[in-house]
Amino acid sequence: MNGQSVLAAALVRGLAEAGVAHACVSPGSRSTPLALALAEEARIRYWSHVDERAGGFFGLGIARATRRPVVLLCTSGTAAAEFYPAVIEARHARAPLVVLTADRPPELRDCGAGQSIDQIKLYGGSVKWFFEAAAPDANAPSVRFFRSLGARAAATAQAAPPGPVHLNLPFRDPLTPPPADLAQITAAAEGLDPRAHVSHANGALAPDDALIDELAAFVREEPEGIVVCGEPEGGADLADAAAAFARAAGYPVLADPLSGLRVGPRPRDLIIDAYDALLRVDRFAADHRPALVIRFGALPSSKGLRTFLEAPSGTRHILVDPWGDLRDPLHVATDVVHVDPALLCRALARALRGARTRASAWSRSWRDANARVRAALQRRLDMIEELFEGRVARDVASALPSGATLFVGSSMPIRDLDTFFPGTDRAVTILANRGANGIDGVISTALGVAAVSPAPTVLLVGDLSFLHDLGGCLAAKRYGIPLTIVLVNNDGGGIFHFLPQTAHARFEELFATPHGLDFSHAARLFGLEYRRARDANELAEAMAESIKRGSVHLVEVRTDPKRNVELHGEIQRAVEEALGA
Amino acid sequence: MNGQSVLAAALVRGLAEAGVAHACVSPGSRSTPLALALAEEARIRYWSHVDERAGGFFGLGIARATRRPVVLLCTSGTAAAEFYPAVIEARHARAPLVVLTADRPPELRDCGAGQSIDQIKLYGGSVKWFFEAAAPDANAPSVRFFRSLGARAAATAQAAPPGPVHLNLPFRDPLTPPPADLAQITAAAEGLDPRAHVSHANGALAPDDALIDELAAFVREEPEGIVVCGEPEGGADLADAAAAFARAAGYPVLADPLSGLRVGPRPRDLIIDAYDALLRVDRFAADHRPALVIRFGALPSSKGLRTFLEAPSGTRHILVDPWGDLRDPLHVATDVVHVDPALLCRALARALRGARTRASAWSRSWRDANARVRAALQRRLDMIEELFEGRVARDVASALPSGATLFVGSSMPIRDLDTFFPGTDRAVTILANRGANGIDGVISTALGVAAVSPAPTVLLVGDLSFLHDLGGCLAAKRYGIPLTIVLVNNDGGGIFHFLPQTAHARFEELFATPHGLDFSHAARLFGLEYRRARDANELAEAMAESIKRGSVHLVEVRTDPKRNVELHGEIQRAVEEALGA
Repeated sequence: MNGQSVLAAALVRGLAEAGVAHACVSPGSRSTPLALALAEEARIRYWSHVDERAGGFFGLGIARATRRPVVLLCTSGTAAAEFYPAVIEARHARAPLVVLTADRPPELRDCGAGQSIDQIKLYGGSVKWFFEAAAPDANAPSVRFFRSLGARAAATAQAAPPGPVHLNLPFRDPLTPPPADLAQITAAAEGLDPRAHVSHANGALAPDDALIDELAAFVREEPEGIVVCGEPEGGADLADAAAAFARAAGYPVLADPLSGLRVGPRPRDLIIDAYDALLRVDRFAADHRPALVIRFGALPSSKGLRTFLEAPSGTRHILVDPWGDLRDPLHVATDVVHVDPALLCRALARALRGARTRASAWSRSWRDANARVRAALQRRLDMIEELFEGRVARDVASALPSGATLFVGSSMPIRDLDTFFPGTDRAVTILANRGANGIDGVISTALGVAAVSPAPTVLLVGDLSFLHDLGGCLAAKRYGIPLTIVLVNNDGGGIFHFLPQTAHARFEELFATPHGLDFSHAARLFGLEYRRARDANELAEAMAESIKRGSVHLVEVRTDPKRNVELHGEIQRAVEEALGA
Repeated sequence: MNGQSVLAAALVRGLAEAGVAHACVSPGSRSTPLALALAEEARIRYWSHVDERAGGFFGLGIARATRRPVVLLCTSGTAAAEFYPAVIEARHARAPLVVLTADRPPELRDCGAGQSIDQIKLYGGSVKWFFEAAAPDANAPSVRFFRSLGARAAATAQAAPPGPVHLNLPFRDPLTPPPADLAQITAAAEGLDPRAHVSHANGALAPDDALIDELAAFVREEPEGIVVCGEPEGGADLADAAAAFARAAGYPVLADPLSGLRVGPRPRDLIIDAYDALLRVDRFAADHRPALVIRFGALPSSKGLRTFLEAPSGTRHILVDPWGDLRDPLHVATDVVHVDPALLCRALARALRGARTRASAWSRSWRDANARVRAALQRRLDMIEELFEGRVARDVASALPSGATLFVGSSMPIRDLDTFFPGTDRAVTILANRGANGIDGVISTALGVAAVSPAPTVLLVGDLSFLHDLGGCLAAKRYGIPLTIVLVNNDGGGIFHFLPQTAHARFEELFATPHGLDFSHAARLFGLEYRRARDANELAEAMAESIKRGSVHLVEVRTDPKRNVELHGEIQRAVEEALGA
């Protein structure tokens, strides 16, 4: 019997026992013992990907949607380096990944053997934990060790803050046990004490009474506060707790589309969903300097909000972070509160009960301005007949059925959603790869999300992002994963049209990088149903049809990047008028 | 005037002065000062790539073809991680790359700013040199420093052994100087002493007289030696020197297709080009144990050769390596000679002049067996009417005009070429990414080679490799790079059909990973001219037409992986018969 195959089976058993339910595997020879063990393990779904980069992001998508650790497995060599972008995004997005890289044993390292590179600490500081484990003989302690190693890897990835871990696992020839041995190998790994594995329970940092008392007293005395909610750390569901706190404090909540506060059935009077447009209006911003800012989650990307928060004002600025990260690129925080945000919100909501029973002039002013601006935005969008990226973002988000997930590209789509999406009572989930904000891996991540979502998933993505991860579409074809891809094609990097780079004589070549591709061929290559939407009605129809039929659709929307910049400007002028009136 | 733009211009000037002639740049904002400086520098050709991974391999291709350092530039974040596979391949292939990653300045690191990851030593031990250089004020010493830094980076990449270096360069807003300032910025960088830059001359390790005397004496006494030539380190041209030495010693030369010894006008009687098939014949191998093996370059991948070299025999086994790497995965070397291989070969050829004027029985026996085996291989290939991968490899390589380059995929194509390519008098160059042997980046590397080659370039690639780097085809469209891609499509990982994994019940799903794609759609997407070759004649015609017209062609050849394994077996039996007769 092949000893290292027994150990691989034990490792995989530990992973499954600790909650791993999905593995993304790229074909290779050196990784055979683990690939076979993963294929034999009934509790783990096996996803095969030709391109490790795409497989890595697909796994990240599953990890983000399920908030459980996902295994990535590849063979030795550059294959392992292909996981790097997804590993870095997982680290910043706090998503649990267990990266398993097969390796050559020491006698085949650094001596000119094929597909042999230095895999020790290959991902540097981007992983929470690195461990190199050579497969020794399959004696009882080794089998126990490998099962415990699998369980520990999954538990470490899951533990707060969640993130990627990396096990490097050398294997020797022969890599393939005779098929007849497989049942025996699995049985050997299963002959272990069923209770003996590393189980992992994670606590949360709770605020103490003194902290609650001090903050509640401050809030009680100070009506002019705001809450800023970005994407919660690690994808935690913070929306209800943050809303409860804001209600008790009577504070308006500036709610990023990724915060979860713009969606679902909830009272909306304190939800400021038009803050991006609102805070670009200088007079409003000057008249609404808060005395207190309480921030949860990542800082929203809104330029208007950032300028507003940066203005010197003597504001007390409290940053709440469950893991003590100092996520404050503006360097304006006065207090860092290193506790679990949901626990803090609920404790403060209790402490503030009855503190502010009527809406203050402050909160009414925010609410009224937000309503006027949002109405102006909606009115202007409805008037635009040509295809405008802001309207596309709003229409796509607003058309989602309850339970659906919208995955949003990192460049313009997420910014347009922030400005133009008024929210919906339907319980939809909005996700984006905003950990490291790359434009890479977006299709694959969305497919990973769609693969495990019972309800429809829609991806809103720009053409450069689409092109970057083109090969990722293969998984849609191979696994028939239902996904509606709305491709906003402005033939290049639309975001650069907003930047001073436009003034450069060779702007198109150096920054916009137009490609002139006809994406219907990409759809044909990967068996996606293609439809081009020429106006808002066609977009709505195409989305509805795709969601109804539950297959993979590519809905292309062509926009003009120059006209896009103009319309953004016109709309902001309409906002200023609405607020001046 | 924008100080950091002056420094960026000085850095780029230093790079150009040290011989950089090509830069592969991916669009981004943070990298703007360097992108503009590269665009302004007349001595550097600017190549734009949406996908940094493809851009990295494209740059690697240029570096391999020109053997001069090539710049890669990207913005901050996961973009930088996308270069990792190409950086690792460059390290192992000894190709000079200067990787420039733009970064956020310290005040925007590790504090939740967008697109900000830890880029310090991002590529770990895979680069020869890492340097972090913040742009200070553009005073005279700083400008000198940045120019010298550019020159030093290029020189270090180029210095023996060549490889990748990494400069991490933080920039602050505003990133874009007014276009009117560009000429002034360039002038400021040009106002430097034209002689004051780091110039770098590289020596080579020369063998001393004692070493030459000892080796020459040994060779003189020992007729039963062989020379094994793999891919030379760093792509050096070793073929003529190694052939001169072998001729003087009277030793047969087992010549890998990447060694350069199978091609070009040269005497062929000592060139053993059928060693892979020959050494699988047990009786021949047993009867031809050498007393001396002298090895140059990487160990060929031939399984027959590896088994032969491993057999215990008391052989003196000399490994010649210019950089003291111990490239001996079989652990059979008895002597490592750490000198420049060409200098050693020429010195030994001189010392052995007149030593062996007539062919020994030993060398005649190798030569005759090789001739019989090669004739049998050719005869069998000519008889196969169906499309067989071995014949495709031979026909493609044999059809190349003089001066052409053949780039070969890492999995089956390079192995088939080794077995079936008899060599040609035409001076063709054969290249492959055999540093780390990945299947990634193959299209992009070949396009990089083609971009700088005056003569035709042909890529022989399998379908999984093609699919892995599909997006790399965009560069062909954007730059109209002439390349003939011969795509051997066996619908999945054909190489696995040779391995014991085939016995597994879920072999197709876990290892072969068939995809069922119609690649004509990929050709349409990227504007490649597509042709399907259904037999050897159609393949020859399609290749000839593509080479003549000088555009980008995708010539698809569909093969049956199971039949492929059978034919390999039949042919080996024909070889055994030929040798037994």
